[in-house]
Amino acid sequence: IPLSRTTRCTCISISDQPIYPKSLEKLEIIPASQTCPQVEIIATMKKNREKRCLNPKSKTVKTLLKIVSLKRSHRTQRAA
Amino acid sequence: IPLSRTTRCTCISISDQPIYPKSLEKLEIIPASQTCPQVEIIATMKKNREKRCLNPKSKTVKTLLKIVSLKRSHRTQRAA
Repeated sequence: IPLSRTTRCTCISISDQPIYPKSLEKLEIIPASQTCPQVEIIATMKKNREKRCLNPKSKTVKTLLKIVSLKRSHRTQRAA
Repeated sequence: IPLSRTTRCTCISISDQPIYPKSLEKLEIIPASQTCPQVEIIATMKKNREKRCLNPKSKTVKTLLKIVSLKRSHRTQRAA
């Protein structure tokens, strides 16, 4: 679907490089809105705080979302 | 588990107010790390760009994550 000129999405291109949870500083989820009709998922990497747009429909991104939002850091898992 | 003085978490307190997807500008997920041993989920609201820390373990937050990362905006759903 060609992007109409009125939309102002943050993501222009989508990266399909693998993302390892450990290399991730944070994930941002920007819901679809009038300014941008599709969901945008942006990963900020620890290295150089590089930002990468991810494909919200891809299985790996959905798995990444699950891992990141559930996982406690190893240090506390051993202590718990 | 009392927070040790060395951790620097972004969230000091957790809000349990309901969050409506439409009132949400974005969601940030910060994975557990050495600086902060627990996952942090921060909602930025459209109104006044207010930031709220959410409870990663709560069912409503997990549902919110699903809704937000799947939902396309209404406008395109009718067009698709």
